[in-house]
Amino acid sequence: MKFKVLRKAKHSKARLGVIETKHGVIHTPAFIPVGTQATVKGLTVEQLKEIGAESVLCNTYHLYLRPGDEAIKKLGGLHKFMNWDRPIWTDSGGFQVFSLGAAMEHGVGKIASMFPGEKSGVLAREGELEHIISKKEKFTRVTEDGVEFRSHMDGSRHFLTPEKSIKIQENLGADLIFAFDECTSPLHDYQYTKKSLIRTHRWAKRSLAAFRGENQALYGIIQGGAFKDLREEAAKFISRMHFDGIGIGGALGNTKKEMYKILGWVTPLLPEKKPRHLLGIGALEDIIKAVKLGVDTFDCVAPTRIARNGSALLLDGESLNIKSGRYWKDKNPLDKTCGCYTCQNYTRAYLNHLFKAHEMLGPILTTIHNLYFMERLMKRVRESIK
Amino acid sequence: MKFKVLRKAKHSKARLGVIETKHGVIHTPAFIPVGTQATVKGLTVEQLKEIGAESVLCNTYHLYLRPGDEAIKKLGGLHKFMNWDRPIWTDSGGFQVFSLGAAMEHGVGKIASMFPGEKSGVLAREGELEHIISKKEKFTRVTEDGVEFRSHMDGSRHFLTPEKSIKIQENLGADLIFAFDECTSPLHDYQYTKKSLIRTHRWAKRSLAAFRGENQALYGIIQGGAFKDLREEAAKFISRMHFDGIGIGGALGNTKKEMYKILGWVTPLLPEKKPRHLLGIGALEDIIKAVKLGVDTFDCVAPTRIARNGSALLLDGESLNIKSGRYWKDKNPLDKTCGCYTCQNYTRAYLNHLFKAHEMLGPILTTIHNLYFMERLMKRVRESIK
Repeated sequence: MKFKVLRKAKHSKARLGVIETKHGVIHTPAFIPVGTQATVKGLTVEQLKEIGAESVLCNTYHLYLRPGDEAIKKLGGLHKFMNWDRPIWTDSGGFQVFSLGAAMEHGVGKIASMFPGEKSGVLAREGELEHIISKKEKFTRVTEDGVEFRSHMDGSRHFLTPEKSIKIQENLGADLIFAFDECTSPLHDYQYTKKSLIRTHRWAKRSLAAFRGENQALYGIIQGGAFKDLREEAAKFISRMHFDGIGIGGALGNTKKEMYKILGWVTPLLPEKKPRHLLGIGALEDIIKAVKLGVDTFDCVAPTRIARNGSALLLDGESLNIKSGRYWKDKNPLDKTCGCYTCQNYTRAYLNHLFKAHEMLGPILTTIHNLYFMERLMKRVRESIK
Repeated sequence: MKFKVLRKAKHSKARLGVIETKHGVIHTPAFIPVGTQATVKGLTVEQLKEIGAESVLCNTYHLYLRPGDEAIKKLGGLHKFMNWDRPIWTDSGGFQVFSLGAAMEHGVGKIASMFPGEKSGVLAREGELEHIISKKEKFTRVTEDGVEFRSHMDGSRHFLTPEKSIKIQENLGADLIFAFDECTSPLHDYQYTKKSLIRTHRWAKRSLAAFRGENQALYGIIQGGAFKDLREEAAKFISRMHFDGIGIGGALGNTKKEMYKILGWVTPLLPEKKPRHLLGIGALEDIIKAVKLGVDTFDCVAPTRIARNGSALLLDGESLNIKSGRYWKDKNPLDKTCGCYTCQNYTRAYLNHLFKAHEMLGPILTTIHNLYFMERLMKRVRESIK
């Protein structure tokens, strides 16, 4: 993998760049659509290409559990399996191990309010903290070696280590992969977050040692919760190592403002020559702020998830709920200024009908719109840096 | 609408023909995919065209109830509404009024075994007859004027007459529409079927009288259950009238053999110059037999419905259940001889994974395969007549 910074913005830390992989290039800043289970829900790869997507991100945790990374390897790897010949990213599995265990179930997201229309991401109330932590213990057990967890599908027990995460990601064969980390929750205190961070750094070393680097690039991940000294320590530690790229993950505070503050601590400490990925963030304003702070790539399930729920993204940062009765006879497209397949060919009335009639085409067409919206947004971001 | 018989088979009554409409041609014999709610479930119109579909059939009953035929008219008609610029058929609503009321709920289909993989279509046992008929009365009440029925969606009461069915179909604006009829059940006796048939013929006259014929063609429908004299009477009666085409509907006996026998009574009595449509039938062997008896077009939900359940059609008349664990690591496509998008790009292993993971793309890709299978079948049928 090669990364080039082509241009830097004058009035911010924004960078225009390009990531080159064996399977093609990614122009940055870029938003990466998520295809958790080796499919961006409802779309064919041709539809994804028509939207303009240059890469997709799949989830190691899900694919390890089903159909299994070894099965995918025997079938020729993830690209062949899902018929996607452009770059693929896989995460380390760490986030899902923790989040599917307890945090997600209790509506604890990365920050309090993640995305317009997104239901999750509401921070638990103080009183619930103890209950959630204790419940979490039932699902995951962290040791120096790794994490024991139960599958969210069948409750079966599994053990994930840095070495195993790398091995799984090598079997899957994505172009861009991530080191194994513990993703702490906004509910964790300073003591736990610090203890976890030090362990995550030992895991980063082990991830790098296990990595063979054949046609793959490995990103290290910066954790440290919402604590300044921990985030700074993490940024310096991960930057010193021989990772190909830098991921910024974990709990990013309780509000958007806190997230921007955390990014402001971290990005000045990162090497200029390595690409920076902000994990799991994809709201319009967050992306724009993070780009200005020097982040290159983003992934987030929100644009596709809210699409399946009938929420279409609009340029003003709002979303339109196409299921609302007010659109029953509306002849307009979702967005008159949008050039996507959906807006070029279908009315709000038709989309409203599809959702009311529980037709698959409703989520499909809205997903196409939302992903095109994200591509259009990123194109504007890249042009503004030029 | 114009219909031309281009060639007749030497050893059967099969005909090669072409239906010309304002929105394009349909080469016959043809299988028409069903898009009940103004969408062939899961597919975009581009995907349908890539498969080779020349027309689709939508259901008047469903679209009348939601979003409403007047709403669709105000939105520019069904073609514009669903972005399909090729020919559209709509049925009269009669079948759904009766079948959604009682017959379907009790698994009474048009014939006993409708399609490989199709669950419905099992004839009720003798003892259940009375219960079913009495329950049906709750949902539908037939008078000389028309049928009162309850919506399967919200239980609201509606009244459908021949005049109203034609008006609705004119509002929808399909190219090929059907007269309003009573679709009797295989459970009805001779007396009721006869009484119903005579009324259906009065409704046929009223349908024709109400029909304005602006860019639309109207098919009359032959009913008469499994009774020879009634089917023959119906064939003669409908043939004498000024319909543009002839539909063959209703209860077609208890077995496939009975259905072929019924078609054998009917088709020799039909005018050569009018196209003939067999309503709701789409199994491979049934189509081949019916084509040989002189039927030109077919519609059926089975190929798309069973696809969504993971059943892929194969050339030997069998179907493959892609959800079966045996396909977990199978590198083959659904069918090695198939040229469809799905078979050209995806393994059984990937499809198996998509269904297990409850991903929309599983039903989508299998629907593409099954509809392509039907197109390929009909192409072969047309070539064999040549």
